[in-house]
Amino acid sequence: MTTVSIVGGSGYGGGELLRLLLGHSQVEVKQVTSRLHMGEYVYQVHPNLRKRSQLKFSDPSELEPVDVLFLAQPHGQAQHNIEHYASLAPRIIDLSADFRLRDAANYEKWYGEKHAAPEWLSKFVYGLPEIHRTELSAANYVSGVGCNATASNLALLPLVNADLIDLSAPMIIEIKVGSSEGGAEGNSGSLHAERANVIRTFSAFGHRHTAEVIQEMGVKNISLTMTAVDLVRGVLATAHAKVKDGTSMKDLWKAYRAVANEHPFVRVVKEQRGIYRVPEPKILAGANYADLGFELDENNGHVVSMCAIDNLMKGASGSAVQCMNLMMGWDETLGLEFTGLHPI
Amino acid sequence: MTTVSIVGGSGYGGGELLRLLLGHSQVEVKQVTSRLHMGEYVYQVHPNLRKRSQLKFSDPSELEPVDVLFLAQPHGQAQHNIEHYASLAPRIIDLSADFRLRDAANYEKWYGEKHAAPEWLSKFVYGLPEIHRTELSAANYVSGVGCNATASNLALLPLVNADLIDLSAPMIIEIKVGSSEGGAEGNSGSLHAERANVIRTFSAFGHRHTAEVIQEMGVKNISLTMTAVDLVRGVLATAHAKVKDGTSMKDLWKAYRAVANEHPFVRVVKEQRGIYRVPEPKILAGANYADLGFELDENNGHVVSMCAIDNLMKGASGSAVQCMNLMMGWDETLGLEFTGLHPI
Amino acid sequence: MTTVSIVGGSGYGGGELLRLLLGHSQVEVKQVTSRLHMGEYVYQVHPNLRKRSQLKFSDPSELEPVDVLFLAQPHGQAQHNIEHYASLAPRIIDLSADFRLRDAANYEKWYGEKHAAPEWLSKFVYGLPEIHRTELSAANYVSGVGCNATASNLALLPLVNADLIDLSAPMIIEIKVGSSEGGAEGNSGSLHAERANVIRTFSAFGHRHTAEVIQEMGVKNISLTMTAVDLVRGVLATAHAKVKDGTSMKDLWKAYRAVANEHPFVRVVKEQRGIYRVPEPKILAGANYADLGFELDENNGHVVSMCAIDNLMKGASGSAVQCMNLMMGWDETLGLEFTGLHPI
Amino acid sequence: MTTVSIVGGSGYGGGELLRLLLGHSQVEVKQVTSRLHMGEYVYQVHPNLRKRSQLKFSDPSELEPVDVLFLAQPHGQAQHNIEHYASLAPRIIDLSADFRLRDAANYEKWYGEKHAAPEWLSKFVYGLPEIHRTELSAANYVSGVGCNATASNLALLPLVNADLIDLSAPMIIEIKVGSSEGGAEGNSGSLHAERANVIRTFSAFGHRHTAEVIQEMGVKNISLTMTAVDLVRGVLATAHAKVKDGTSMKDLWKAYRAVANEHPFVRVVKEQRGIYRVPEPKILAGANYADLGFELDENNGHVVSMCAIDNLMKGASGSAVQCMNLMMGWDETLGLEFTGLHPI
Repeated sequence: MTTVSIVGGSGYGGGELLRLLLGHSQVEVKQVTSRLHMGEYVYQVHPNLRKRSQLKFSDPSELEPVDVLFLAQPHGQAQHNIEHYASLAPRIIDLSADFRLRDAANYEKWYGEKHAAPEWLSKFVYGLPEIHRTELSAANYVSGVGCNATASNLALLPLVNADLIDLSAPMIIEIKVGSSEGGAEGNSGSLHAERANVIRTFSAFGHRHTAEVIQEMGVKNISLTMTAVDLVRGVLATAHAKVKDGTSMKDLWKAYRAVANEHPFVRVVKEQRGIYRVPEPKILAGANYADLGFELDENNGHVVSMCAIDNLMKGASGSAVQCMNLMMGWDETLGLEFTGLHPI
Repeated sequence: MTTVSIVGGSGYGGGELLRLLLGHSQVEVKQVTSRLHMGEYVYQVHPNLRKRSQLKFSDPSELEPVDVLFLAQPHGQAQHNIEHYASLAPRIIDLSADFRLRDAANYEKWYGEKHAAPEWLSKFVYGLPEIHRTELSAANYVSGVGCNATASNLALLPLVNADLIDLSAPMIIEIKVGSSEGGAEGNSGSLHAERANVIRTFSAFGHRHTAEVIQEMGVKNISLTMTAVDLVRGVLATAHAKVKDGTSMKDLWKAYRAVANEHPFVRVVKEQRGIYRVPEPKILAGANYADLGFELDENNGHVVSMCAIDNLMKGASGSAVQCMNLMMGWDETLGLEFTGLHPI
Repeated sequence: MTTVSIVGGSGYGGGELLRLLLGHSQVEVKQVTSRLHMGEYVYQVHPNLRKRSQLKFSDPSELEPVDVLFLAQPHGQAQHNIEHYASLAPRIIDLSADFRLRDAANYEKWYGEKHAAPEWLSKFVYGLPEIHRTELSAANYVSGVGCNATASNLALLPLVNADLIDLSAPMIIEIKVGSSEGGAEGNSGSLHAERANVIRTFSAFGHRHTAEVIQEMGVKNISLTMTAVDLVRGVLATAHAKVKDGTSMKDLWKAYRAVANEHPFVRVVKEQRGIYRVPEPKILAGANYADLGFELDENNGHVVSMCAIDNLMKGASGSAVQCMNLMMGWDETLGLEFTGLHPI
Repeated sequence: MTTVSIVGGSGYGGGELLRLLLGHSQVEVKQVTSRLHMGEYVYQVHPNLRKRSQLKFSDPSELEPVDVLFLAQPHGQAQHNIEHYASLAPRIIDLSADFRLRDAANYEKWYGEKHAAPEWLSKFVYGLPEIHRTELSAANYVSGVGCNATASNLALLPLVNADLIDLSAPMIIEIKVGSSEGGAEGNSGSLHAERANVIRTFSAFGHRHTAEVIQEMGVKNISLTMTAVDLVRGVLATAHAKVKDGTSMKDLWKAYRAVANEHPFVRVVKEQRGIYRVPEPKILAGANYADLGFELDENNGHVVSMCAIDNLMKGASGSAVQCMNLMMGWDETLGLEFTGLHPI
């Protein structure tokens, strides 16, 4: 068995990762650290793991060598200890934002502070298999992905791959998100009585995940608008762009089908009947799928491209496990078989 | 007392109208018709009115003369009986879509069928006081407003009024809506188990309310994208536009303040602290306010303008009562004093 | 105009009280204090009051004399300053738990600490008009009510009034509550991602509000079981008791109708058709009604009695305003006319 | 591979069953019938199965022989065709209520009509492994379980097994349920705008599932009170009973631990700290666990026993698959490994 450990396992991303790793046939979870909860059973924080695991949270200072080390700490921490972690494990997957951007100046621009380990940025591969599958197979260091960036990148991927976008027109991505994106800490606005029933556009533009879309899609004229809605898990990105002149629905179908055929976790959802005709995060809780849809206004070339994901799965821990599978040469879908529920 | 009646009072719009009229100091509700529920107490359908009213639903065929007649039927019905209704009341306010558009050809384009009473279209004033206050004061026939159109129109109003929009750039309005917009009939997708937890982009463009925005704002290059979210009452429109070169935040503040100062139900919500920094429909349930907010990306002139309303109030019945107040020469806010609740 | 002030106006109860008092025709709100938010506009904390009030939170130490003083602080504070407050106002209504129980030993039993002003306990009248209307008319000092106690007391009131309960059998009251009951502070379990979708029986018995039911209903063999559900505002108490032998449905109808006829805010909800056949807090948000229902199993005398209220209205601030109306000799319903919304 | 088919696969129970069977290592799904949807892909009705299965719904009249046949039709249908189904498969598991009660007179009493195949009632084993594991291992015909009955039976199981209940005192079980219990058809009260935010006690006593509790627990003096709350999946039963004199917390712990140790899907949840101290259906969506908790008031012997389940899993399809595993001699937990999600 391949041994794995998680640093920072008491947050939502860490908990989801632990759930996936405990169900993964090729790995054994050795340690899960938490400064706040060390000594407690992991199921006391992640109650879904009761009777599934008798692990206790470890002291972070007692981290032991392991085959694959997952880092699931809040942003800004991994970069300060990356040398130490690299001494403990030949392979590292960091879910935080610390190693997602390739350029230190870019990091400083979006995160407002100098990167503490800029020399490590080039060693990491951005952890989205739908873009970097080949590099991931050979990688030792893999970054996580921003959940909103992932929904945006995958919404745009078929259009960018097929070179269908008129890049001179601005792209506007409207993202609706559930409350788990705010993390297990929350703030005053995360209180149920304040957060329930909201439609709250908390960021009109300038969200940090924008940097990952610019980097990964190679587009520039783009903005992400963030709206919180009443849901726990899930992200829907609705991307507005302009297609190149002459682009037809047939071209779009071809582009989307190509992406869905290439990637096991990408599905095209575009039905003429039934309730579920378009991508919806509702049915993706716990699943690693990215559901894509699109509409084209042939009068003016306005394309509306949608991507729904579970922010804790495809937008965080699911993609991380998928990356591990690629790094280790295993089947890409291992441990990620859960299909999601309906109804829910 | 001024006598009023409601035709089609068992739907959500009709029920909300009845609630408002029962609490209005200047009117007496004479009849509320419902083909489906005639003979039943109104509180059996609208349970909030229990102990507030002993009215029963009347047979529509027994409608009597009245000072002001409200029509709250499904779309496509009022136009077939408008002569009859006009013989019963000198003043008519129709909440449906039948008399919102001024042009019969335009009606046919968006609604897919010929208008049954095209000669009446020019007699109606579009029932949004923030645009037509003066005409409404002299009007006998007033149309309702589309709830999504209202959120869109009011989001754009300060920008259009101050001539700040670069009309050569496309305008994209992303609208998030609650389930009451679907009406009391619903469909298979309205079932709680299917509709709860959704983020469902059910219309990428082409929504009929677009016609009201084009007509009322005088803009053309515009699209409305509709997304259903988990909420019962409420609409948030997030409008993306480009301002004219040289437009500053100061210009925007001036434009928004002017609109808020002129209209008793418009508020600007743009705070630096606290939980409620931006417009949110959550706190507007039952209130007639339209809350407006905005952000400007000074790098590229991208303006994000928001408008939150209660779809059944400012987006339907509240605006209708406001119109009645203007038509009758009463204080515009009469019967619309409820401020909304927090938390909720 | 009668002048009123609120001590501790930034919580949910204080905010709801402020909303009601601002809309009350006979009073002028002079001050609203908040240690945490002093200097801020009240609408920055209670966003529904924007454009309705330009009041700012005052420093508690600068409280001025007033006709009626409302205390809306967390439990355990009012009792330490009651002499000071009494020197500032001839009439005091305290929403907290400090003066609800008449017996100091009983207070210590349920609240776990000695009462700081036991000599004041006998000066206060328990602030539930449906039980103490006459005393309230002559009272200078009135306590608030526990929201769960209120739902329980009103569920039992018709049965107790008509002497229909077999007091030898245990009474079990199952109470389901929304998240606003937890207050604006909340705790880790109040985070939206944790609190959404819950059915959480957080207290099987021993809830402090039990003491108010024992005191006010004069029953002993009783328990309250508390379950949190996914809702912001609202309480439903489902009381299980045994009726005396020979009690019929007719007796129950008579008992319930008597209570509903006597009290303007009590309604009986027991329908044979329609959606809203039983009491439901859903439609009571913002309304001061207590909706009562009942079912009798004639085979064994098991009676199920239900009471739905809005915990912030009839369960707190609404009852407090109703008490003020009685104390001042005004119409009991003044300022409490809002009927609630449907749908919501 | 063992072949299985599902009759009536378009409902919520059928869909959940299909999800489980598609992920089960020992079976191959041959046919899924649906009169309404025949010819459609199963993923058009159960969107979570997209890219997981290319099955189409079959015509019920073209059902073929199979090793295990699951019946997932609405109540009242299977009993009319049981001979036919038995001719097609040596093993049948019927999720409906048709074969849950052993006594035809009892069936008629609770379901209001004569049973169409009373001679088959004795051939079926009640499909709850926690009660009938041994018989299930030898059974050919297995009934489903009522979800509310299951939550009630499992809440009482430790108390009944250990003979701790004072059977002379009435037992009151308060059950809170999500909307998926109403099925994919729904009614006017199932519309999202009406069903959201509810706390609706729709049945005070007399619910049909009571018959299964009386039968399986061997208790008589019992009532089930049903309250709908805002959740899609999940049931919480809170059972109130009286323990025999002298029963201590230690006795209860022993009784609960014994049940949890014996049954792989039973967990005891009774924590002193953390957010999840008691059983909650919230974290059980998709999982087959039954979480049990308890509290004892030592002053009066009042025990409050809780059981949380996912109504579509342990309360329906999950138990059905568990039964199949036992019937086939496989590991009881096969195909039921999903742990549930947190947060959700």
